[in-house]
Amino acid sequence: MGKIGRKAEIIKEARWLFHTKGYDSTTMQNIMERLDIAKGTIYHYFKSKEELFEAVIENIVEENLAEMEQLFLELKGNALEKIEALLLKGNLSSEELLNELHKPANAAMHLRILTAILRKQAPIYAALIAQGCKEGLFQVQYPLESVEMILFSIQFLTDIGIHPWSQEELFRRLQAYPNIIESLLKAPPGSFNFLPNLWKG
Amino acid sequence: MGKIGRKAEIIKEARWLFHTKGYDSTTMQNIMERLDIAKGTIYHYFKSKEELFEAVIENIVEENLAEMEQLFLELKGNALEKIEALLLKGNLSSEELLNELHKPANAAMHLRILTAILRKQAPIYAALIAQGCKEGLFQVQYPLESVEMILFSIQFLTDIGIHPWSQEELFRRLQAYPNIIESLLKAPPGSFNFLPNLWKG
Repeated sequence: MGKIGRKAEIIKEARWLFHTKGYDSTTMQNIMERLDIAKGTIYHYFKSKEELFEAVIENIVEENLAEMEQLFLELKGNALEKIEALLLKGNLSSEELLNELHKPANAAMHLRILTAILRKQAPIYAALIAQGCKEGLFQVQYPLESVEMILFSIQFLTDIGIHPWSQEELFRRLQAYPNIIESLLKAPPGSFNFLPNLWKG
Repeated sequence: MGKIGRKAEIIKEARWLFHTKGYDSTTMQNIMERLDIAKGTIYHYFKSKEELFEAVIENIVEENLAEMEQLFLELKGNALEKIEALLLKGNLSSEELLNELHKPANAAMHLRILTAILRKQAPIYAALIAQGCKEGLFQVQYPLESVEMILFSIQFLTDIGIHPWSQEELFRRLQAYPNIIESLLKAPPGSFNFLPNLWKG
């Protein structure tokens, strides 16, 4: 097995073990045993469990990006229809990824993964905002920065993994966001009324 | 000394020690010695150093809130003038508070303090947005939620303590925010052109 294959194999096994056993309960020894490799081999690629975890995060983020890019290519319709479809499918796959890392994720780690995922997703949504501007649906001078602001703030302000908001606090926010996003993008009234349906799912 | 006085005294001393020595280097023993109190006394109020740190954070957040409320009462002018003055003074005091906690703050702790401060500040800014709506400066259906979105996302997306953004990434965002906030609040063109001056400081 080549060097790239061996490294990828370690990451894959670690990701599976972190997911099933939890990050804390997984040792470098466990990973070596399951792959039947020597200590020298695993430490050649990763100096510590933390470094291996970084690689697992990167792997997760890259996988999410690849999936989002594939979804993006398959989208049909005007910018609003595409955004709705992408939010629906993209969010589901991000949730799976985050659930996978639920056990090891303390707030800091959780935040790092979220940040990494959102940074990669923002340009994809920004391209749809730009399309919407051409179609006369939106009027936005800074598509990327606007998307970042929407994605990060909604994620941050509704993520009870980051902060334990009450149900009421969550509800009042989710209720307000369609209107706020509409203002921000100068979109026609009601453009984002589909959002609550996504959150109910 | 009464119970409230003793507890406040421990918090005050811990805050000072965490600030000067750093959180990691400060022990419960250090705090006891400086206050000349028995182990039983400190552990009567705080089960652990973590619990004491929580109290220090709460103390910092409450102090910031009291200061913001005082600033709010002294503001003069229309909503935009008040917002500019509050942002200028409020940000400076928050920065001091965060610098104070710079040493012990890992990303998670940093985020917790920021979140707590911004949650307390949001209703104060929301009152100014509501004033601006009455003055015909803004048109906002959800003042509190809009303010939260602006405060949290700008804080999050420009805080290199949370994520090590490059100078270019910071710059392109700071350049875009006056325009984005203007759209979000339906404010007259150029209303928030004062923002870059705050960030330069």
